[in-house]
Amino acid sequence: MALVVVGSVAFDTIRTPAGEAQEVVGGSATHFALAASWFTAVKVVAVVGADFGEEHLAIFRERRIDVEGVERAPGKTFRWHGEYHGDMNAARTLETQLNVFEHFQPKIPEAYRHAPFLFLGNIQPALQLQVRRQMNRTRLVTLDTMNFWIERAPAELRQAFAEVDAVTLNDGEARLLTGLANLRQAAQAIQALGPRIVAIKRGEHGVSLYTPDFIFKMPGYPLQEIRDPTGAGDSFAGGFMGYLAGTGDVSEANLRRAVVYGSVLASFTVEDFGLRRALRLTREEIDARFREFKHLSHFDL
Amino acid sequence: MALVVVGSVAFDTIRTPAGEAQEVVGGSATHFALAASWFTAVKVVAVVGADFGEEHLAIFRERRIDVEGVERAPGKTFRWHGEYHGDMNAARTLETQLNVFEHFQPKIPEAYRHAPFLFLGNIQPALQLQVRRQMNRTRLVTLDTMNFWIERAPAELRQAFAEVDAVTLNDGEARLLTGLANLRQAAQAIQALGPRIVAIKRGEHGVSLYTPDFIFKMPGYPLQEIRDPTGAGDSFAGGFMGYLAGTGDVSEANLRRAVVYGSVLASFTVEDFGLRRALRLTREEIDARFREFKHLSHFDL
Repeated sequence: MALVVVGSVAFDTIRTPAGEAQEVVGGSATHFALAASWFTAVKVVAVVGADFGEEHLAIFRERRIDVEGVERAPGKTFRWHGEYHGDMNAARTLETQLNVFEHFQPKIPEAYRHAPFLFLGNIQPALQLQVRRQMNRTRLVTLDTMNFWIERAPAELRQAFAEVDAVTLNDGEARLLTGLANLRQAAQAIQALGPRIVAIKRGEHGVSLYTPDFIFKMPGYPLQEIRDPTGAGDSFAGGFMGYLAGTGDVSEANLRRAVVYGSVLASFTVEDFGLRRALRLTREEIDARFREFKHLSHFDL
Repeated sequence: MALVVVGSVAFDTIRTPAGEAQEVVGGSATHFALAASWFTAVKVVAVVGADFGEEHLAIFRERRIDVEGVERAPGKTFRWHGEYHGDMNAARTLETQLNVFEHFQPKIPEAYRHAPFLFLGNIQPALQLQVRRQMNRTRLVTLDTMNFWIERAPAELRQAFAEVDAVTLNDGEARLLTGLANLRQAAQAIQALGPRIVAIKRGEHGVSLYTPDFIFKMPGYPLQEIRDPTGAGDSFAGGFMGYLAGTGDVSEANLRRAVVYGSVLASFTVEDFGLRRALRLTREEIDARFREFKHLSHFDL
């Protein structure tokens, strides 16, 4: 089943203890769409500037991602400049240039409107709501957000939470949003705002999924080296939503598998800078790592 | 099979966001022995002062724990005073009174010397070595340590590491010991010091077991409230070693189950202050939570 994503397409400049990358294609919609594209038809809503050429759009087209909803506006593409230290569990933003993103008004192409699965990437909550309300036959809508919106737009964010089925956020964001240090309590407080499903991303420690019926926790994949964590959260969401949309099945057993596929995609993304690893990934590698997650976490009663 | 533990028996004074406890029985050997006693015959080597009465020793005797190796020395019992803040992943020590522990020279009773399983709780590495060398037919020796010894007695600690099969330490300690932020790399660096098996305790995030043959990760149990994390690590080690000793089986499948039983015991310990939860625990509760860990982490391929 079709999956629509709205989010950022960006040029990222990233420094980590493992090296750096200058002006590489990134953004939440990009990382999400590439991860999800292994499982289903993905349709992107975003804005780029005049400096985002055909060679950049080819990244999406090669994975058969629909870019009809990617608007080209006068001006420069959104730019993010960040760095990571120590265990790399959090980014430090050095500079954000909104550029064409400043006046972005997402428009959903007619052909996108009936997609049953929707991911609202980390953008202004008012825009997330605007997109959500343009989609009228959704089966599962998931929203991602970050500290910046929790602090700057709490009212809009709460409204957006009230109109979605699921949210993804990291442990620090869950604590900031709810004021609760205990993550299970924080997840329950978030469920009380609307979303039935809460996925808390815990970086190297993995992901926890809270639903009204069950809790599922998957540890992080034990990588020897993390080169660049940028995009890990969006890759997780892409694997998760992509797998659900591709199978059209949101049962408990499938939600569990979707968390693992999300974890698989995120674990690849962080192996190299920007999209490098994502662009040389194969389906065989994805399925092999899915089985490795089983081996990593399985025990017999 | 019999399991010997050497470690501290203490009076703890603890403050957490959930409350406080004054001069309650604690210590690494105590938490370990109570957890392990569900699975096997446990024999304790420790020292207490004149203020540690029969009513305190009864805590061990009621669980049929052998206290022949608990020496009563003139003076006061070891005291620890600590507090926890925020997510409670680390304790802040306010005061340590070594008392009878200052001149402790562990003596292993004759009846203990052939026990196949040995746990060297968090005490001075030179004493851990002394105990280890008094045991001559061991099958699995596990050592626990902490920041204090990593910083103050690095040479003795390395010697102790070289003579054990397994170590347990938390993520911060693994990073401090090795200078490596990546936990898989840190585990490998620790294996290079001697121990084949490295269990890295990650607090609320669970435990990772690294062996030459496999890596196994178990997430933390999603508690609604953590009242007092004191003794969680020793309870983990007690459940882990106790289950291995009780079954006499150190196969891969059993090591995995032992990590889960360790996680189960640790998850109960933190539900209340000091030994309160441990003392009202039942085998039915342990087995029910073991199955809950399965539900928490299971997915179908």
